[in-house]
Amino acid sequence: MIKNIAVIKGDGIGPEIVDEAIKVLKKVEEVYEHTFNLNYVKAGGEAIDAYGECLPEATVEACLASDSVLLGAVGGPKYDVQPPNNRPEKALLGIRSRLGLYSNLRPAKLFTELKDASPLKPEIVEAGIDFMVVRELTGGVYFGDHVTTSENDVEVAYDVMKYSAPEVIRIAKVAFETAMVRNKKLCSVDKANVLDSSKLWRKYVLEVAKDYPEVELTHMYVDNAAMQICKDPAQFDVILTENMFGDILSDEASMITGTIGTIPSSSLGEGTRGMYEPIHGSAPDIAGQNKANPIGTILSVAMMLKYSFFMEKEAQAIETAVQKVLDDGYRTGDMMDKHTTLVGCKEMGDLIVAAI
Amino acid sequence: MIKNIAVIKGDGIGPEIVDEAIKVLKKVEEVYEHTFNLNYVKAGGEAIDAYGECLPEATVEACLASDSVLLGAVGGPKYDVQPPNNRPEKALLGIRSRLGLYSNLRPAKLFTELKDASPLKPEIVEAGIDFMVVRELTGGVYFGDHVTTSENDVEVAYDVMKYSAPEVIRIAKVAFETAMVRNKKLCSVDKANVLDSSKLWRKYVLEVAKDYPEVELTHMYVDNAAMQICKDPAQFDVILTENMFGDILSDEASMITGTIGTIPSSSLGEGTRGMYEPIHGSAPDIAGQNKANPIGTILSVAMMLKYSFFMEKEAQAIETAVQKVLDDGYRTGDMMDKHTTLVGCKEMGDLIVAAI
Ligand SMILES: CC(C)[C@H](C(=O)O)[C@@H](O)C(=O)O
Ligand SMILES: CC(C)[C@H](C(=O)O)[C@@H](O)C(=O)O
Repeated sequence: MIKNIAVIKGDGIGPEIVDEAIKVLKKVEEVYEHTFNLNYVKAGGEAIDAYGECLPEATVEACLASDSVLLGAVGGPKYDVQPPNNRPEKALLGIRSRLGLYSNLRPAKLFTELKDASPLKPEIVEAGIDFMVVRELTGGVYFGDHVTTSENDVEVAYDVMKYSAPEVIRIAKVAFETAMVRNKKLCSVDKANVLDSSKLWRKYVLEVAKDYPEVELTHMYVDNAAMQICKDPAQFDVILTENMFGDILSDEASMITGTIGTIPSSSLGEGTRGMYEPIHGSAPDIAGQNKANPIGTILSVAMMLKYSFFMEKEAQAIETAVQKVLDDGYRTGDMMDKHTTLVGCKEMGDLIVAAI
Repeated sequence: MIKNIAVIKGDGIGPEIVDEAIKVLKKVEEVYEHTFNLNYVKAGGEAIDAYGECLPEATVEACLASDSVLLGAVGGPKYDVQPPNNRPEKALLGIRSRLGLYSNLRPAKLFTELKDASPLKPEIVEAGIDFMVVRELTGGVYFGDHVTTSENDVEVAYDVMKYSAPEVIRIAKVAFETAMVRNKKLCSVDKANVLDSSKLWRKYVLEVAKDYPEVELTHMYVDNAAMQICKDPAQFDVILTENMFGDILSDEASMITGTIGTIPSSSLGEGTRGMYEPIHGSAPDIAGQNKANPIGTILSVAMMLKYSFFMEKEAQAIETAVQKVLDDGYRTGDMMDKHTTLVGCKEMGDLIVAAI
């Protein structure tokens, strides 16, 4: 197959982790006889440096013209002086909305080899951590009106957390479909005891549930969910939630696996074009030192192959290769413990490429 | 001193835990020669049962006429059939807003004796968990407009997350004052990279900071805070945040201590009148079985004595008594492990009373 991929390296460790992911893509290309055309474009800090704006229209167009987008990470303290609407993270929000990527999947899965890295105690970790957070990505308080104004000479600011029925329905479908290919358990997280948008959320999740009688659906308040993720993560199979709650809970979920450097994510819309990126940030403190963990980005490539290109066995080959390299005891600095072998970002990439 | 206390027992385990807290109050009354006049009033489910409404005006008036309010817990599945505006939790929100209780303090503190109950691993727990969450309680998305409507024949719902400068300033002052009597470290949590209300929040927190040069102020995004609370809770002294983020993070913070049954809270406004309640819920599954943990409520009484009545040594006496009973190995079911002695809710109350 021939696929066109827009590549955004981004800032901080972005370029080095993306370089390793590209090596993996090239290996897959070779072994499985595909053609991946890579179109390098800029967004975030690197775009501010090159063009003065965090998300040039040309980048959006390149993404729209591609079959999928691979992104490293954006942001860094250097850009704190930029006006709020030209910060690197605005590029991320802009791509999500311009590409209509309403469905963000973030797996929280513990690699057995890395279980000591979890902040949770062994009894809890041993029960297993393997769930998927399905986060709505183009609605809610992120994309409602943002207003700073003055009322009776007092400065006030507000943000509008808004959802429509169709927005809830389409993401609920994604979550139910995800549950169907997993263990058929879905926990929808909201704050329906306080928020109208959550009441609407719950109503339409229940509506969609009618089409998925096999899926066991539960509802949980977001405050309780924040507790349960620490207390008993094994109870979860798929968590469905709105944008802001998903931001908070998916970060907490990734942290309990202990190795956020290994966690990929997908962001999809109506079609098969998605954006794929590791969930960690741009880690400016270790940028350019060959210390970064490329696994989150490499597994993001695996997600791309699976969800956007339907290349199941190619995706599986990458996942198996990562597993093998971890089994063999190789670790980047963030995953090290005393029984393992330290390797750099490049070496980790090479090891994974060799294992495919 | 003579103090008038409005007492709301509430639902589920509410009555039994409040009964134990009252025993403690009576002991303090006797030992330290105070007079606590108790005015029992109803809110939440018990008020729905008795009067058909979750927050009768008479209850609000009794609270307003009191020197402080003690509350057990409200809510239960029995009330799920009530219309949304007559649910037990609306009583809580109503009291907060009618009494102007904008400042909610929730300590996350691990009792050394209970460290095995924490879901975190020993290395992390041993570094210590002892911080205070200062949550804004009468603003933000809880109290902005809640609207469900239809736009172009599509059902939509929204909630408005709103803050004004004075609202931020007054809660920031509470947080800085709290930091001043602790370890002088304050972490303000927001989502200023996305929300206008968070930008305003950060601006006025920085403003208030000028009056507290001794306090080391940091800012953290809420998603990162959700991670850091699991990863390295020892880094925190005081966390300041808005209403919804505070709801989520304070629950996560209480969970990592492992024993949410022991955590009290205070809610204060401009004056000294506060509402004091344990942070746990009404636990209908164990209600009326003498199994509940009364410590969260008893320590809420200690907070009341300290923050509303300035009875420092009386509050200290209660805290010391709780510590002693735990040292002696007594536990309610939620805190049990194999080296300790199981006691019921009443017996736990008696033991603490005896230790004062
Ligand atoms: C950078 C920020 C705007 C973004 C978000 O809040 O969505 C990030 O935290 C994420 O989760 O991808
Ligand atoms: C019951 C609910 C409305 C309440 C809240 O969200 O504030 C509770 O979770 C709390 O934290 O006191």
